[in-house]
Amino acid sequence: MRILSSRGHPADAIVAIGSERSAGSSVPYGSGEVGVVALAPEVFVGCDVALFCASADVARSHAREAVERGCVVVDNSSAFRMDPATPLVVPEVNGELLEARPSPRVVANPNCSTILLLVALEPLRKRFGVERALVSTYQAVSGAGRPAIDELVEQTKGALDGGAPEPSVFPESCAFNVFTHESPVDPETGLNVEESKMIAEARRIWERQSASISPTCVRVPVERAHSQSVSVTLGAPASLEEVREAFDGAEGVEVVDDWGAGVFPTPLKASGRDEVLVGRLRPDPCEASDSTGRHRVFSLWLSGDQLRKGAALNAIQIADRLCMAPASAG
Amino acid sequence: MRILSSRGHPADAIVAIGSERSAGSSVPYGSGEVGVVALAPEVFVGCDVALFCASADVARSHAREAVERGCVVVDNSSAFRMDPATPLVVPEVNGELLEARPSPRVVANPNCSTILLLVALEPLRKRFGVERALVSTYQAVSGAGRPAIDELVEQTKGALDGGAPEPSVFPESCAFNVFTHESPVDPETGLNVEESKMIAEARRIWERQSASISPTCVRVPVERAHSQSVSVTLGAPASLEEVREAFDGAEGVEVVDDWGAGVFPTPLKASGRDEVLVGRLRPDPCEASDSTGRHRVFSLWLSGDQLRKGAALNAIQIADRLCMAPASAG
Repeated sequence: MRILSSRGHPADAIVAIGSERSAGSSVPYGSGEVGVVALAPEVFVGCDVALFCASADVARSHAREAVERGCVVVDNSSAFRMDPATPLVVPEVNGELLEARPSPRVVANPNCSTILLLVALEPLRKRFGVERALVSTYQAVSGAGRPAIDELVEQTKGALDGGAPEPSVFPESCAFNVFTHESPVDPETGLNVEESKMIAEARRIWERQSASISPTCVRVPVERAHSQSVSVTLGAPASLEEVREAFDGAEGVEVVDDWGAGVFPTPLKASGRDEVLVGRLRPDPCEASDSTGRHRVFSLWLSGDQLRKGAALNAIQIADRLCMAPASAG
Repeated sequence: MRILSSRGHPADAIVAIGSERSAGSSVPYGSGEVGVVALAPEVFVGCDVALFCASADVARSHAREAVERGCVVVDNSSAFRMDPATPLVVPEVNGELLEARPSPRVVANPNCSTILLLVALEPLRKRFGVERALVSTYQAVSGAGRPAIDELVEQTKGALDGGAPEPSVFPESCAFNVFTHESPVDPETGLNVEESKMIAEARRIWERQSASISPTCVRVPVERAHSQSVSVTLGAPASLEEVREAFDGAEGVEVVDDWGAGVFPTPLKASGRDEVLVGRLRPDPCEASDSTGRHRVFSLWLSGDQLRKGAALNAIQIADRLCMAPASAG
């Protein structure tokens, strides 16, 4: 709601849709409020875009109702991400899918970790190609929802007082601890669901089934904004200077990389920001450069607000691009 | 002191050496205490081993005094780690250097991150060889000493109360935040000192200057025990089963890797443990297996107590192995 308001969508263009229980309440919007109406097929009548920010089950049950009433659905759940008929879009990477005619009726918003990685890699992919990316994530607890933030606070207070309560949202204590992502591990591949999503979604978005993405997904005791340590193999050799130039003016990315002052991206710096922050850009120390001093393998470090660019902002960027004239929406 | 006591060294075999300021005080040892004497050349007379747990400057100034009085020095600082005349030892990896005759007079204890990585990789190196390791670390603040633990607690309390004080030990707030390692970044390579140490020390310990180790070192808000996400390229292809077998009975490592129950290493589980905990063992998802179903690239996740195996325990293992009959020492 904050992002919609800050991007100039007036309150009377917004319909807030909630559960039966929330209906009749109101939510802050800009300097005012918007009333909440109960989810029902007819609430979609007259809307241009329906932003679904609910479970995959809710999306599966209600997206069709919205589409049948003339809405474009931008869904933030995993329900349609692997559906071949539904475009999976990061506007900076494959936004041209939104200009297909006839327009897509449902667009899926990728997983937050996928979005942050692909936005950061896009300037390199555009200029040099990307052959392979090895990623270790440092993911904020808020990816698991509001109860996870509460658990981080409660566990941390408990630990400071000499004994944390048993965790209930996560399988491990998240206070002063890190653990590999809590999603189930596939007995065939050994990958957890978060890791499998990153691979499958990157391949769909890049339209390259052979894309080599090897993630290890880990939770850290951070409230908001994910970080990632990435080793990327380029399609063509590049100098460090050329790699830096590739980020000049790139959409959705800001380079924060002051070697002398030791200033690099952190989740605190990325929180509340639209851009993915990228730093620690350097050639791999163990790969010899070619005869022109260029390298194929580079390391980088990124931090990005997974609630904004990793979710809400990406969905609204998709919606705005689909409508093009947001101020007249509704 | 706790590790020395638990390994059966009697209190009367121990001389605690401190600064002028600490002299005359006493420190707990086993069920009793040991008095602290001021550092001076003559305190080393009659000792077999001197365990230096001080700065590199103290080691450089006083190690020779101890050696000249017949002590073997095991130094935990970085003073002698890259000195070609000083063995750099992880007992599980290159402990045979301690059996050289004449015995080494000074032995250097590697950096904590190097020790944990090499102990975890040793079973794979022994059986298959290791061609390359890409490492992203999740390092506890206590690597930066007691003031860093205090800063983590103070920053966290402040953040919970709505505003953390300015950090003083670290360049960034360590409360609910992560940041790449605070050591200076080399203007030539872009590596920070911690990363450079890992590469140089691994090459020395493996006695292979071409060893390919590419680290990214990161601090996380954890009090104690470091974790690492590792992608390792083996010298020979292996099945996942063979990789697991390699860890059977391996020294200093314990596999914690229950895919079904989602039980993997964490820093909380590793704290106070001698073993490096290893889990998330799996083939790289993007490397095709060979005709026998074997892989060259595997991922793993480790947690290890960097204050024990990463420092004190490793030094005492070296000392014990040098003396062989610890109960008669002193």
